[in-house]
Amino acid sequence: MEVLALCPKEDELRVIEKDRPVPAEDEALIRTLAVGIDGTDRRIAAGKIGGTPPGDEDHLVLGHEAVGVVEDPNGTVLEEGDLVVPLVRRPAEGGERYAKRGELDMAPPEAVHERGIFGAHGYLAEYFTCDAAYLVPVPESLRDSGFFVEPASIIEKSLEQAFAARSEFDWDPERALVLGNGNLGLLALARVATHEKFAQAYCLGRRDRPDPTIEFVERASGTYVDTRKTPVAEIPTIFEPVDYIFEATGHPPFATAATQALGPNGVLTLQGIPGSSTHEFDAGDYHTDLVVENKAVLGVVNSRRVHFEAAAKWLDDISEELIDNLVTGVYGLDEFERGFIDTPETIKTVISFD
Amino acid sequence: MEVLALCPKEDELRVIEKDRPVPAEDEALIRTLAVGIDGTDRRIAAGKIGGTPPGDEDHLVLGHEAVGVVEDPNGTVLEEGDLVVPLVRRPAEGGERYAKRGELDMAPPEAVHERGIFGAHGYLAEYFTCDAAYLVPVPESLRDSGFFVEPASIIEKSLEQAFAARSEFDWDPERALVLGNGNLGLLALARVATHEKFAQAYCLGRRDRPDPTIEFVERASGTYVDTRKTPVAEIPTIFEPVDYIFEATGHPPFATAATQALGPNGVLTLQGIPGSSTHEFDAGDYHTDLVVENKAVLGVVNSRRVHFEAAAKWLDDISEELIDNLVTGVYGLDEFERGFIDTPETIKTVISFD
Repeated sequence: MEVLALCPKEDELRVIEKDRPVPAEDEALIRTLAVGIDGTDRRIAAGKIGGTPPGDEDHLVLGHEAVGVVEDPNGTVLEEGDLVVPLVRRPAEGGERYAKRGELDMAPPEAVHERGIFGAHGYLAEYFTCDAAYLVPVPESLRDSGFFVEPASIIEKSLEQAFAARSEFDWDPERALVLGNGNLGLLALARVATHEKFAQAYCLGRRDRPDPTIEFVERASGTYVDTRKTPVAEIPTIFEPVDYIFEATGHPPFATAATQALGPNGVLTLQGIPGSSTHEFDAGDYHTDLVVENKAVLGVVNSRRVHFEAAAKWLDDISEELIDNLVTGVYGLDEFERGFIDTPETIKTVISFD
Repeated sequence: MEVLALCPKEDELRVIEKDRPVPAEDEALIRTLAVGIDGTDRRIAAGKIGGTPPGDEDHLVLGHEAVGVVEDPNGTVLEEGDLVVPLVRRPAEGGERYAKRGELDMAPPEAVHERGIFGAHGYLAEYFTCDAAYLVPVPESLRDSGFFVEPASIIEKSLEQAFAARSEFDWDPERALVLGNGNLGLLALARVATHEKFAQAYCLGRRDRPDPTIEFVERASGTYVDTRKTPVAEIPTIFEPVDYIFEATGHPPFATAATQALGPNGVLTLQGIPGSSTHEFDAGDYHTDLVVENKAVLGVVNSRRVHFEAAAKWLDDISEELIDNLVTGVYGLDEFERGFIDTPETIKTVISFD
């Protein structure tokens, strides 16, 4: 079968031929339908992150946003034909105690492998095997969009963490702000715009009209904020203070600057992973503002089964048309390069095996 | 009766004579036993913060850490002789909806007055009146230490917020760190050192031995960390990563630097209120560290009835002797100046009316 792999020695992505995997005990064999491409994949392709599995493997099969069909349940609880989405993390040394309670998303980075990213092969292959414990059955309606479950699960985890952090008082958020209009940002915008708690959803970007991401924000009933005209700290005066912020940019100053856009008791969840970047900032004002208005800043990475299930439920509930607008390119494995190109027109690209 | 008041026109603290207050409907008359003095009181005394009640009042009665006895229940649910501790905040314009649900601690600063601090007279008076809804009955055992209930209630709120923020996964913290060895820091150290969840409690300060604060830390089975030898970011390598940090310094760089002392899924609660202070810092590293290890930073201010009740319970449970070690001076109103002096030997000073 064909797979898309990073071959670090040759420093390039290429389609290579591998044997179809044989499921071990507790594993099922999955036929891949489609795999979404995101910024992590592009950074792996660019040689910035990523790592081959331990041992003498000379390549890493990419892909961590997959949807597939059970080809061979192999005695697991799954049935042939089930539509499934696989989790990303697997335990490495020190990760067993997190795996045991199904919370690998809370393990430190060194205690996990991430399939398709670091230390374990991913799902950009015609077939893959996976322990049934790491496969989440999803509704048939997600056959063409199930690759959104993994990124949407991060958003579900962030919302869960935000609400948990505010659970000891009567938090009644009304306004949400998403920082960033990349594919995760727009998915988050769609999520908060359709969330029963939020009456208003803002999305911060730096694009000129006409622009497909601005169109998406407005189609989802969101309000686009041009950060070149309205810096994040001025959102409360130009628009209104917000109660929840989902950061999807990895723009380092946002970790401290964005809290200024929060109203009392607001929460900022950070999801981006920026590189080192030194700035001057007013640590006293940041500190004081967090304290006197009871604000919270939460780092959030990865997600677990309950978040995948919540994401699948949300995707099943909302308008298929809205989400379809996020997909700007579907490519076969033979034209995978096109899926890795990121232009101003690109939102979500997908490699299809169907 | 005599009260201790800030007279902004004369720019000084002085004992003045006022009429004994008469309780209005729903109010009780309280005979004050003792009032603790903290950094906020010292800043008010120094003219840095604080404000007189609205209207033509020319003074502010100080004191927000009080314990007293019900002198006249005045038809409220209280009984004559009940030992009580008063809450600090009262609703100002916009604060009613927070007051209605008993959550004035979550109101923004402009929506509240704080008795003894800003906009409402405090408890440094032989008698005060108070709405029964803002009086918390406490056990008789706290007759001599009930002034600790208010500051201890902030610690209870911080712990509550920290545990809430980690409630959606199996958080099992073992190590706590307190930043600061002032009176709030040492009280927090005693709290985490006696907390069933924490096996190890560290306290960061910058003092040379022999020193009463270091002695207190060690008497409470804590470990003193000299920040001059071990900067907060090096605690994980010199000692071990911690799961929870209580900041009680108002030292601005700690809002961002202290997260480096946290292990995976750790929480930093900030309580200090520093002034503006610009620093260089690596926003990218801060952001990334919060994300990849699911860390949380929570600003926490003030507290509400449940936190006062939890604080009273803790104070009732622990060794009286331990807490007594925090009190370095008890003064009558006629020698109040001594209570406001802050020397290296000072931990907690108290003005007694008893």
